[in-house]
Amino acid sequence: MTEKTVFCVGFVGLGLIGGSLAMALREAGFASKLIAWDHDPGVLQQGLSLAVIDAAADSVSDLMGQVDIAVLATPTLISESLLLNMLENPGSARCVTDVASVKGALCRAVKSLAPEHAALYVPGHPIAGSELSGVASAQPALFRHHRIILTPDTATDAQALELASALWASCGASVEQMGVEEHDAVLAATSHLPHVLAYALVDALAKSPIRDNIFRFAAGGFRDFTRIASSDPVMWRDIALTNKEALLAAMDDFSGHLDTLRRAIASGDSPALEATFRSAKQARDEFARDLEQRGREGADR
Amino acid sequence: MTEKTVFCVGFVGLGLIGGSLAMALREAGFASKLIAWDHDPGVLQQGLSLAVIDAAADSVSDLMGQVDIAVLATPTLISESLLLNMLENPGSARCVTDVASVKGALCRAVKSLAPEHAALYVPGHPIAGSELSGVASAQPALFRHHRIILTPDTATDAQALELASALWASCGASVEQMGVEEHDAVLAATSHLPHVLAYALVDALAKSPIRDNIFRFAAGGFRDFTRIASSDPVMWRDIALTNKEALLAAMDDFSGHLDTLRRAIASGDSPALEATFRSAKQARDEFARDLEQRGREGADR
Repeated sequence: MTEKTVFCVGFVGLGLIGGSLAMALREAGFASKLIAWDHDPGVLQQGLSLAVIDAAADSVSDLMGQVDIAVLATPTLISESLLLNMLENPGSARCVTDVASVKGALCRAVKSLAPEHAALYVPGHPIAGSELSGVASAQPALFRHHRIILTPDTATDAQALELASALWASCGASVEQMGVEEHDAVLAATSHLPHVLAYALVDALAKSPIRDNIFRFAAGGFRDFTRIASSDPVMWRDIALTNKEALLAAMDDFSGHLDTLRRAIASGDSPALEATFRSAKQARDEFARDLEQRGREGADR
Repeated sequence: MTEKTVFCVGFVGLGLIGGSLAMALREAGFASKLIAWDHDPGVLQQGLSLAVIDAAADSVSDLMGQVDIAVLATPTLISESLLLNMLENPGSARCVTDVASVKGALCRAVKSLAPEHAALYVPGHPIAGSELSGVASAQPALFRHHRIILTPDTATDAQALELASALWASCGASVEQMGVEEHDAVLAATSHLPHVLAYALVDALAKSPIRDNIFRFAAGGFRDFTRIASSDPVMWRDIALTNKEALLAAMDDFSGHLDTLRRAIASGDSPALEATFRSAKQARDEFARDLEQRGREGADR
């Protein structure tokens, strides 16, 4: 693919994800030099003093002029303009990748606004995170035994794809490929929809006339079910709006199934209700077993 | 209230809840004698050999002829006919109570079918449980620091209410009173609705054309959110149908809030979305703090 085996890697945005990736790449010996640009100079200072990065760039184009691989790791809403800026000034970069949890909106923007540089861009999404944030919470093991989904298409440069795959593999992540639309539909179903349901449920209960007794008598099952409603409201607002189409489709599909259950309850259709509960339990038990198995495999490696 | 300070307590149905209550009452010195009847003689044999009970009754009426307090602790669907049987043959019982998680249906049945014995009946619901079942899993500490909700009304006999309260208090439970309708609405909101939502979500995803990737890429947040969809389908079918009115009302309230969120997402109403997510997060954070506090207070006692 390339004569190089160690690379200069640059980060646009140095938070928990960018910082953890930088630390992992250093530990793996994948990066010879790690640099970053962030809109907050204090963050760069922190990254330098924690030795997460070796140097701070003055600007996005300064960074692009020095790197082999550039990683965009900012919050959802500012990702699009920064990504276009990076692709329009590719400098020495042979691969531009990102970590945003919604891929369709960014891919569409690149194709329509920077089509001549689209080949360099390898859309990426690590399925890993933490309730913590900021570079001070970065940890090099964050991606180990986790999945990273890349959503390249036929226009993606083969070398860029190879570089992005090698970068994540060096951190111990399992690299998977998926179509952009399927990625966004899968994430809408498994993550964005559950967040919206949890927010909607807590919102409904908080506005109930019997709110006090509801929260007074709720217990551990309710705590687990609503844990994700304690997530950052701004981040989830942005994810919901950025993945609008896939999320609305998942919500409508869910509401259809909920309506069917409602009709079974209202009409006292005991067999239908039991059949649905039973097949859902079976699917969920299988999923939980697989997830536990994945965890054990991870622990074995 | 009564000259006695220790009582003969009988259980109709000897599973996890009945067995745990029997063990707790023995430990507390509340019961001088513990007897039980169960439709399964093997269960009674097990209860005797584990020394959970002192004697097995031949029938419900045999049991009612010996006890001061009778506790009904069977699955939801058979509760009604057994409760009516107990109240129509009260024998020596001065209090008949139960542990069913839905109270309205039983209270209505008692009022319409056994009104002359309704005063003896103190509807009860311990907010405690376990993923285990059966008398072999019974544990005397199951109710300690947990809440037990009694839903008496003006027709309830004062001595019967005092006996039921004393019985639960002796097990270390915190005894609370609530109206029947409010109880069923609170439980619909905090427990029955979340179960239906979790079942509906897993059912929708299991029937999705991208099912394989959905379960393959779902992670820990999804596991927590859907944990309750691994609950016993028959038990939850019965609870959903028995608490139909309150559950349907909670489902409709929830669906209204979900529709409002859907409109905000579809129209890109960023401020509305953020405001709802933010107030839900605040309510959920408050609830989680209170629950943790309750746990700490429990641990201190």
